[in-house]
Amino acid sequence: MKLILDLDTGIDDAMAIAYACAHPDAELIGITTTFGNVKVEDATRNSLTILDYLGHPEIEVFEGAAAPIGSDSYTPEGGSVVFHGVNGLGEVDFKFSKRVKSEKTAVEFISEAIEIYGQELTLVPTGPLTNLAELLSKRKDLIGKFRVVLMGGALTVPGNTNLFAEANIYADPQAAKQAFESSQPITMVGLDVTLKTLLTKADTAQFRKLSQAGSLFADMIDYYIDAYLKYDNLNGCALHDPLAVGIAIEPTLAKVHQMHLTVETEGPSAGRTIGNHQKVNAPDPNVKVCLDVDAKAYMITFMELLSSALTKGEDSWNTI
Amino acid sequence: MKLILDLDTGIDDAMAIAYACAHPDAELIGITTTFGNVKVEDATRNSLTILDYLGHPEIEVFEGAAAPIGSDSYTPEGGSVVFHGVNGLGEVDFKFSKRVKSEKTAVEFISEAIEIYGQELTLVPTGPLTNLAELLSKRKDLIGKFRVVLMGGALTVPGNTNLFAEANIYADPQAAKQAFESSQPITMVGLDVTLKTLLTKADTAQFRKLSQAGSLFADMIDYYIDAYLKYDNLNGCALHDPLAVGIAIEPTLAKVHQMHLTVETEGPSAGRTIGNHQKVNAPDPNVKVCLDVDAKAYMITFMELLSSALTKGEDSWNTI
Repeated sequence: MKLILDLDTGIDDAMAIAYACAHPDAELIGITTTFGNVKVEDATRNSLTILDYLGHPEIEVFEGAAAPIGSDSYTPEGGSVVFHGVNGLGEVDFKFSKRVKSEKTAVEFISEAIEIYGQELTLVPTGPLTNLAELLSKRKDLIGKFRVVLMGGALTVPGNTNLFAEANIYADPQAAKQAFESSQPITMVGLDVTLKTLLTKADTAQFRKLSQAGSLFADMIDYYIDAYLKYDNLNGCALHDPLAVGIAIEPTLAKVHQMHLTVETEGPSAGRTIGNHQKVNAPDPNVKVCLDVDAKAYMITFMELLSSALTKGEDSWNTI
Repeated sequence: MKLILDLDTGIDDAMAIAYACAHPDAELIGITTTFGNVKVEDATRNSLTILDYLGHPEIEVFEGAAAPIGSDSYTPEGGSVVFHGVNGLGEVDFKFSKRVKSEKTAVEFISEAIEIYGQELTLVPTGPLTNLAELLSKRKDLIGKFRVVLMGGALTVPGNTNLFAEANIYADPQAAKQAFESSQPITMVGLDVTLKTLLTKADTAQFRKLSQAGSLFADMIDYYIDAYLKYDNLNGCALHDPLAVGIAIEPTLAKVHQMHLTVETEGPSAGRTIGNHQKVNAPDPNVKVCLDVDAKAYMITFMELLSSALTKGEDSWNTI
């Protein structure tokens, strides 16, 4: 299986990169970036940096959307800074990569990869769906020709930006609506399941022992865990983005409900993911919403893969 | 299986009575009533009347809540009148029953039935959950000792009162919150599934041929279907309340998602049924939310049972 992660790198995005790099059944063929937890240029810088630390400087990063559909600019909101820090990596002092983004845009890179790999390719967006919406709009011929497993949305639980909206969808409701209402098959990994996979400081303590990269990751994730405790009263951090990668590679981890989904784009509930009332009885629902996850099995795999990624990362970092 | 229907009789409640009376695997041991589609005294009158027409004057009706928790009075809102008519029976000229409500209150009757029948008893509330909340609050010793399968709520689709709330829950959000947050096992049959079982005028035309009761039922249901077409752009009426009875008797008709559910009681989304954020990872979720239904199988059973009920009704009505 070939993977492209479409990231707004962020702390859980960094964990998603590590998970993808270490999984024996997946090949991470490139990362694309978007605004979201941070500005897009910081998402690019962070992605390159994390790849370096994990010993994968060969993986390229392709920059995408800088702002939501219809906007010229984007500044992360308070919640993003609270959870991810100003640098997006929990204010941990990673040495930023000297590498730079590749020439192709995010959408160009994804389009070419779909043409090469087809259904063998899974795109995993873990930020706003702006790149995906642009792809589906510009290249209608590619709809249905690749897999999409995304982190975003909240169907059966409240949002995390407000009562209604999850942050990724809230950041560009129009893009999300376009993506869900297309006929592209999409698996949605939202708060319905990501709040069921919690990582604690007892877990990150294991990473700290492994290597320099492990130590920096542990500090970074602890920043995230502290925010969850303080603002969400949860005894650990949700593994939003790495869970989407996990379900992309092993779909049987999740129980899904298949339906036609839409997104509200106006009013107090803008960004809410909800069933499309006009299509309750329509055939061929294109969205699989994950409602349950085998959290125990996932957490075992997560700990194994991150430990492996962070151990290997140290080895190759020393040889750079 | 023993059934008590807790109704705000209404058109689909009338169909629920017919469904329950005709099902060979269930015995309708009594009806309790609540405000909702109509005032409670009209719900009582309509229930007695429909039972008479169906040839079941032996089934008693026990009156319950006249208004939501914390309110002194209740007047049906515009939407109820639009869908059910002022008399609650689509303005069809049923001859109202000369019978009157029984002496016991709704909650007294249900409590005694639980003590007699235990898990053999299923309560099917199809209106506001005020009676159920009163029961669970007054008789905590009975929690978990009987089955509840209710019509109400909307988890994965928009509401029908507004974007957020289904009408039964909207009418008394506090009662619904109390019921869902109790540890009483509850199966929720909400708009998620009831909008998938649509009855058309081609179906009601079959009832019209059967008997006088069939003819009146057909006129009554056609009133309901007209409202669905006009206000909801649906080519048929949803079988909200009879579907709850169907799933109560045959649980395998539905696919469920088990979870801790709550109800918002304030703000623009008062009445929204949504996962309880505080209990995402808590054990023993008490609510099974129906997300899919075998609509084809259900509709076949529905047509058979209603046809049977309306044919038998005519026979015994003629002998009264």
